[in-house]
Amino acid sequence: MRYELYYWPGIQGRGEFIRLALEEAGAHYVDVARLPDREGGGMRALNRFLEDDSAKRPPFAPPFLKAGKLVIGQSSNILQFLGPRLGLAPKDEAGRLWVHQLQLTIADLVVEAHDVHHPIASALYYDDQKPEARRRAPHFTGERIPKFLDYFEGVLARNAGGKGFMVGRALSYVDLSMFQLIAGLRYAFPKRMATLASEYPGLVALHGRVAARPNIAAYLVSDRRIAFNEHGIFRHYRELDI
Amino acid sequence: MRYELYYWPGIQGRGEFIRLALEEAGAHYVDVARLPDREGGGMRALNRFLEDDSAKRPPFAPPFLKAGKLVIGQSSNILQFLGPRLGLAPKDEAGRLWVHQLQLTIADLVVEAHDVHHPIASALYYDDQKPEARRRAPHFTGERIPKFLDYFEGVLARNAGGKGFMVGRALSYVDLSMFQLIAGLRYAFPKRMATLASEYPGLVALHGRVAARPNIAAYLVSDRRIAFNEHGIFRHYRELDI
Repeated sequence: MRYELYYWPGIQGRGEFIRLALEEAGAHYVDVARLPDREGGGMRALNRFLEDDSAKRPPFAPPFLKAGKLVIGQSSNILQFLGPRLGLAPKDEAGRLWVHQLQLTIADLVVEAHDVHHPIASALYYDDQKPEARRRAPHFTGERIPKFLDYFEGVLARNAGGKGFMVGRALSYVDLSMFQLIAGLRYAFPKRMATLASEYPGLVALHGRVAARPNIAAYLVSDRRIAFNEHGIFRHYRELDI
Repeated sequence: MRYELYYWPGIQGRGEFIRLALEEAGAHYVDVARLPDREGGGMRALNRFLEDDSAKRPPFAPPFLKAGKLVIGQSSNILQFLGPRLGLAPKDEAGRLWVHQLQLTIADLVVEAHDVHHPIASALYYDDQKPEARRRAPHFTGERIPKFLDYFEGVLARNAGGKGFMVGRALSYVDLSMFQLIAGLRYAFPKRMATLASEYPGLVALHGRVAARPNIAAYLVSDRRIAFNEHGIFRHYRELDI
């Protein structure tokens, strides 16, 4: 199967959780909006889908994945679809519900990480909501990050003593997403995450193990990995790193 | 199967999406935290789960559902689990992915509806973030509600001309959730929703059809339906209904 991923071409964003799964599995895929227009790519290809009033099952927003005739939206839903096909999900129903549950919990934190720099409206620039962002930031770094990471560290620790994977005895998409979450939080809040590192030894080690996997390591140094930047979800603004 | 739903006993909140599915299906279920302590219910029963450090698959937060030995968290995940069992989801994989995708999109709007009155931190009272809420509200009512409802109205219209269900030819959990979304937005933003009503005739009619289903109609007038209030997700603050 040749997968087509549709996502904003200039950011990691929510698309990155899908890219990591496709890359780890060595899947045959095209990151459509990153192709040149003349090859049928670019924003034009992405917008064609979003503006298609005749689509029977239209996605609300990127990312979405084309797999044969299926067009699937919502990043956690895409991962749930890809997981079994890429060998990145448990085989039993209970295991699949559990990885999906964890993925949705990661997605909840991702929303909060975005809203730290956009507490008023996504349609406004960061500069236009800076006072509110500065007020929100200490709640996020002081309460929310620890609350979520405590939970994830506990889940990891209770599975094989934390030396393995988030779920079961094999890598799943939720390990890859956990890597991305830690990487993103470290990029956005380097000082805060440095002070927290000793409290989450399991997650820090998991991040390292995922980064060292051959396909992920090759991906991270390739042109396909977009660098973190201040257009994405995880943004580094020094004044918010409290 | 006797299901046990665990959710905050004083609000509709995210638990309501689950309650509606269980009620429509006439399922055998217990709303555990609403039972008296002496019957094994109350906040004590709920907290026992959240504070259990030995649970192998602990939920991060309510709602969660106990079904036999399974404990399932994240409301969209719970609905995905219940859907086929309660006859509230399509039978084919493509249809199930699609109802789940729509459910996750509803959940995204629910987060935004909450953050209108809590743009800075969930841990603070509304009164402590009123200026920020007043600044966020017009973006939500002016841009976000229409963007989402346009999308949902379009999805409904393209399925059987909008006179039936959101997906396919039978009721699914996403129709029930759409009812709850419209009900919640109307409660929180009555003036704004009144001006918008004529633009979403399909969704307004769907809301009415769901409310009139015998099991839902009986539920809505029962003691089991908690009234909307200013502790939940959808809150009516006149100054935010712009």
